[in-house]
Amino acid sequence: MNDPPRPLLLSALAGETVPRPPVWFMRQAGRSLPEYRALREKAGDFISFCLNPTLAAEATLQPMRRFAFDAAIVFADILLIPLALGQEVWFEAGEGPRLGPRPELATLRAGLAAIETRLAPVGETIAAARAALESSRALIGFVGGPWTVATYMLEGRGGDRAGARSLAFADPEMVDQLVELLVEASVIYLAMQARAGAQALQIFESWAELLPEDLFQRLVTAPHARIVQRLRAMGVSQPVIGFPRGAGALVAEYAASSGVQAVGLDVQAPASLGRRLQSQGLAIQGALDPLLLRVGGAGLDRRVDQLLEQWGQGPYIFNLGHGVIPDTPIEHIERVVRRVTGA
Amino acid sequence: MNDPPRPLLLSALAGETVPRPPVWFMRQAGRSLPEYRALREKAGDFISFCLNPTLAAEATLQPMRRFAFDAAIVFADILLIPLALGQEVWFEAGEGPRLGPRPELATLRAGLAAIETRLAPVGETIAAARAALESSRALIGFVGGPWTVATYMLEGRGGDRAGARSLAFADPEMVDQLVELLVEASVIYLAMQARAGAQALQIFESWAELLPEDLFQRLVTAPHARIVQRLRAMGVSQPVIGFPRGAGALVAEYAASSGVQAVGLDVQAPASLGRRLQSQGLAIQGALDPLLLRVGGAGLDRRVDQLLEQWGQGPYIFNLGHGVIPDTPIEHIERVVRRVTGA
Repeated sequence: MNDPPRPLLLSALAGETVPRPPVWFMRQAGRSLPEYRALREKAGDFISFCLNPTLAAEATLQPMRRFAFDAAIVFADILLIPLALGQEVWFEAGEGPRLGPRPELATLRAGLAAIETRLAPVGETIAAARAALESSRALIGFVGGPWTVATYMLEGRGGDRAGARSLAFADPEMVDQLVELLVEASVIYLAMQARAGAQALQIFESWAELLPEDLFQRLVTAPHARIVQRLRAMGVSQPVIGFPRGAGALVAEYAASSGVQAVGLDVQAPASLGRRLQSQGLAIQGALDPLLLRVGGAGLDRRVDQLLEQWGQGPYIFNLGHGVIPDTPIEHIERVVRRVTGA
Repeated sequence: MNDPPRPLLLSALAGETVPRPPVWFMRQAGRSLPEYRALREKAGDFISFCLNPTLAAEATLQPMRRFAFDAAIVFADILLIPLALGQEVWFEAGEGPRLGPRPELATLRAGLAAIETRLAPVGETIAAARAALESSRALIGFVGGPWTVATYMLEGRGGDRAGARSLAFADPEMVDQLVELLVEASVIYLAMQARAGAQALQIFESWAELLPEDLFQRLVTAPHARIVQRLRAMGVSQPVIGFPRGAGALVAEYAASSGVQAVGLDVQAPASLGRRLQSQGLAIQGALDPLLLRVGGAGLDRRVDQLLEQWGQGPYIFNLGHGVIPDTPIEHIERVVRRVTGA
């Protein structure tokens, strides 16, 4: 008997020659799907939903039933880490996350020991989803980037992060300590996800934008490098996809110094930049505009073809440059996945 | 008798060797100054203020009395063009601009003939400010980038421009025609400003971010190139500073193809990118973080020194990466200007 086929995503991440780019979409599980909205209604508050392995595994698998995606990503939230560390987190309907007062660093630090137990349900979600998923499809675990998570912890909510960026200037020691604490938490959490069955790990640094070069190095590139280094030191060998959204021209430095195996590119990434990263032995992922996915039409087809043409020869994972927008027509997602997979 | 000294800004823009980088700040005229706030109270609505040459010249000159800036920029607003073309524009206190329904393209096009007369007060502001300004200091005229202005005209207000970007995908012909109309309006308006005494011209493309490469080329780089080309064809020889804020890694393509003499860099621009542009014969301008200017302290001094060190040998205009934040302490501005000018 032959071994089961290796998931295309993992081959691409390993830099192997693949018959076509694998495809998955950030936020492929979520409000764009009617079955998700039905599940969400039964699930109670959002945090309880994320920490219920049965429901979260179901949300993880829903898009895999509908679309020929090559990878699933565990249904969870980047703010589970502050929650596990002892900062209150809740979601206001239609307004996004809210966080309670930030505990002292020492209190948060004491919370590190509790990460594995408090986030054990995410491990159970991963185990359940992995067991249900065909062996040809990969399962991705993830964490929010330390800086991005820190901005929420510092500001208590989403926004323009001017408060957090100001603090990075005004109180660099405190911000650096918080980011380092989140590096440690991320390592514990990602290692647990890997043990539970995650086959690749993504760092979502959603707010990498608007940082001057020195801050970007200090708050994004170096912390990601520490995460990758420590995972390897612990024997965690899963490939890491780093996604510094909005990093602009700083992506090149990030790719060279972060130690990740693949770089997620946002909608703005030039073709030449992606090819440069590929030539340096990195896989790239992205960068279809979710607005164009929502608009659809011939322009969407043309852009899909262009992305496949410009990057398809190197290690390339077809994806969006940001998450699926909730009211995106399902037919547009189907159409793009068919175009990429040739199915 | 010797000729009066050439303004340092113009020497830097011409690529000449200068004893130190010239310095000015975007939004140096405005709410960070108490004398501006006093003037603003007397001025009535914001549009009337911009179109009152006496008051607008006073606002232009206020920062020049307080600080040793090497250049003044005419006090005006990027939304004067839609106003002149016949779309209603007003400012809600504390909320920013609002625009009335967008007239048909044909109606807007008919408005082109009225640009020079309707915006004649800006020419008078420039003439008055130029007459009052020492000859060693330059006066800058400006226009909003066609795409940025189009986003306001399409959406009726500021925001995340998702509506305008979606339209660029969904109705490219209409958006292209609107942008081309704004290119024509910009050329007429900038030529008028140059005749009135503006010695350099800046294009503020404030919303260059989040555009995929093909849209960026179509909506930002190519329109800027058409503006520069047509100005030159009309005999307008003033140097043009293009500021595609948020263009990230696309700045390199912009610099190569837009035809501008200087590129404004935002807070994120890596040192290496700026040096590359300088080595290609372009002047660069920016990129101090206005948040750091507001925070102040030793970190501000260090960053000023770093910018002078990394870019000061090439043609470099010291500036911010975005506008002065209204509650920035005046002492911080003074301190930076002294540090750059050595005065």
